[in-house]
Amino acid sequence: MAAAKYAFGIDLGGTTIKHGLFSADGELIEKWEIPTRSEENGKNVIPDIAASITAKLKEKKISTKDVIGIGIDVPGPVLENGIVNQCVNLGWGVTDVAAELSGLLDGIRVEACNDANAAALGEQWKGGGQGYQNAVMVTLGTGVGGGIILNGRILPGANGAGGEIGHIKVRDDEEDYCGCGKKGCLEQYTSANGITRMAHKYLDKTKKKTLLVNDDKLSSKKIFDAAKAGDEVSLAIIDDFGKTLGEALAGIAAVIDPEVFVIGGGVSKAGKIVLDVIQKYYKPAAFHACRNVVFKLAELGNDAGMYGAVKMVL
Amino acid sequence: MAAAKYAFGIDLGGTTIKHGLFSADGELIEKWEIPTRSEENGKNVIPDIAASITAKLKEKKISTKDVIGIGIDVPGPVLENGIVNQCVNLGWGVTDVAAELSGLLDGIRVEACNDANAAALGEQWKGGGQGYQNAVMVTLGTGVGGGIILNGRILPGANGAGGEIGHIKVRDDEEDYCGCGKKGCLEQYTSANGITRMAHKYLDKTKKKTLLVNDDKLSSKKIFDAAKAGDEVSLAIIDDFGKTLGEALAGIAAVIDPEVFVIGGGVSKAGKIVLDVIQKYYKPAAFHACRNVVFKLAELGNDAGMYGAVKMVL
Repeated sequence: MAAAKYAFGIDLGGTTIKHGLFSADGELIEKWEIPTRSEENGKNVIPDIAASITAKLKEKKISTKDVIGIGIDVPGPVLENGIVNQCVNLGWGVTDVAAELSGLLDGIRVEACNDANAAALGEQWKGGGQGYQNAVMVTLGTGVGGGIILNGRILPGANGAGGEIGHIKVRDDEEDYCGCGKKGCLEQYTSANGITRMAHKYLDKTKKKTLLVNDDKLSSKKIFDAAKAGDEVSLAIIDDFGKTLGEALAGIAAVIDPEVFVIGGGVSKAGKIVLDVIQKYYKPAAFHACRNVVFKLAELGNDAGMYGAVKMVL
Repeated sequence: MAAAKYAFGIDLGGTTIKHGLFSADGELIEKWEIPTRSEENGKNVIPDIAASITAKLKEKKISTKDVIGIGIDVPGPVLENGIVNQCVNLGWGVTDVAAELSGLLDGIRVEACNDANAAALGEQWKGGGQGYQNAVMVTLGTGVGGGIILNGRILPGANGAGGEIGHIKVRDDEEDYCGCGKKGCLEQYTSANGITRMAHKYLDKTKKKTLLVNDDKLSSKKIFDAAKAGDEVSLAIIDDFGKTLGEALAGIAAVIDPEVFVIGGGVSKAGKIVLDVIQKYYKPAAFHACRNVVFKLAELGNDAGMYGAVKMVL
């Protein structure tokens, strides 16, 4: 009788490294995390992961020959061949993470991809995009990330920049710079930070009564909460967010024509109100054939990357 | 000894149907065209093509078993399974063009796709995009069409709308409607008609001296010719075209991160000036990883669709 087969999904973040041990049919058996030691140009990161996997194999009495593979995502651009093209958070230059990790683990097959793309694949496979083969994941966190899944596979892009939708230029009149060095990027208006930034601008000018307080503690969560409570100023701020994002997603639909948009990241925790305000502006801006694309909330939270990572080897 | 093998590429347009007989290794042996009889909901179109191919096979003494396949493109949306999802120019409703044509030709394998996508595949294979596996074709004709090639294959999209880049919304202040029913589409500013439309608006307002005459005979060709002669008004009009298109292509690059943009259609006949003015605005708007994507002019002209069509079966 053949032994059971296993796989690992590793979500390598700037602070922690999430590990998942999965069965061959994609069920999560156990998950755990270790800290990311990014000091000294991240030289310990790959050995730490190898040691963590080795310890788990020993604990579970699993032979390396019963491991189908390891999928790992990293917070930086990854080319189609799996080479990481610099990773600022980890201090890495060009790194063949798959070859290095495999070399420390008896030659187990390792596949690498970008973290936003892994989250997209995870959500398409087991989360909000389940049942669809062609999905665009939109992650509204500190920034705006994205990932494109076509026929169940990640679109990495020629330069590892596939799905970098946060840096679509959407406004011509911006005075502040985006983290990427340009002005007017989607993420400057629709990330958690972007929503708050625009709210401060709005509150600086308006004389309307509002539940919001224009101080350093203002957050996108507070704005969505106030909007749900009927606060008109908050509703106007959210409306502006929906217009900017809805129209940008309509543009994306006219390029790749997906079946589903999956909206994730911290902002998406506000729930249905987020989908509603995006679709309010998506539909009139969308090319007619793409008007009825499905919008879903992400479901896997912080586990999405781990799921997407393991999916690459299953 | 095995007989030589052949394939056909058919570019089905609203006025003429271009036929190409190709060798198995993709060399064009002969091309010819027949008129498109679109009357009576286009009921003669498929039988006409079948008759044209049958006659050519007879003339060349080629057996149907030596035909590898027939690729055909149509001027309407085509789903991934080859079903045409309405075709207004031909009067077709939902049509399984591949099955119908194959049924009239001894069961020869037939593949169908959209005409803009076929042109993209043709240019990627044998034209301006040769040598690149990931290309975006931008066709600046009466309208603006597009096609996305990923790993050498057409991206059809979930609703047959992959690459419909002419209908990305790029402006918020438009008063005229696009043919698609929306306002502010890319094609309203950057197609041959769009450039001329914007030129009329500019000429209505300006008092500057110019070589252009603000009459019904104004065309994008005249504007580019005058720009090449140093006409400042024309240069300003072209500059506006370049900004709108360059920034839109930067947005597309942040989604799919291609290796090359191939610029075709009537407007592209103006040559290098078109690439230059697009890139002038593309580069500052592009996400840093995508800044050095290659821009090329299309090379196959009206044959691009025929080449792309046959490529589907080779």
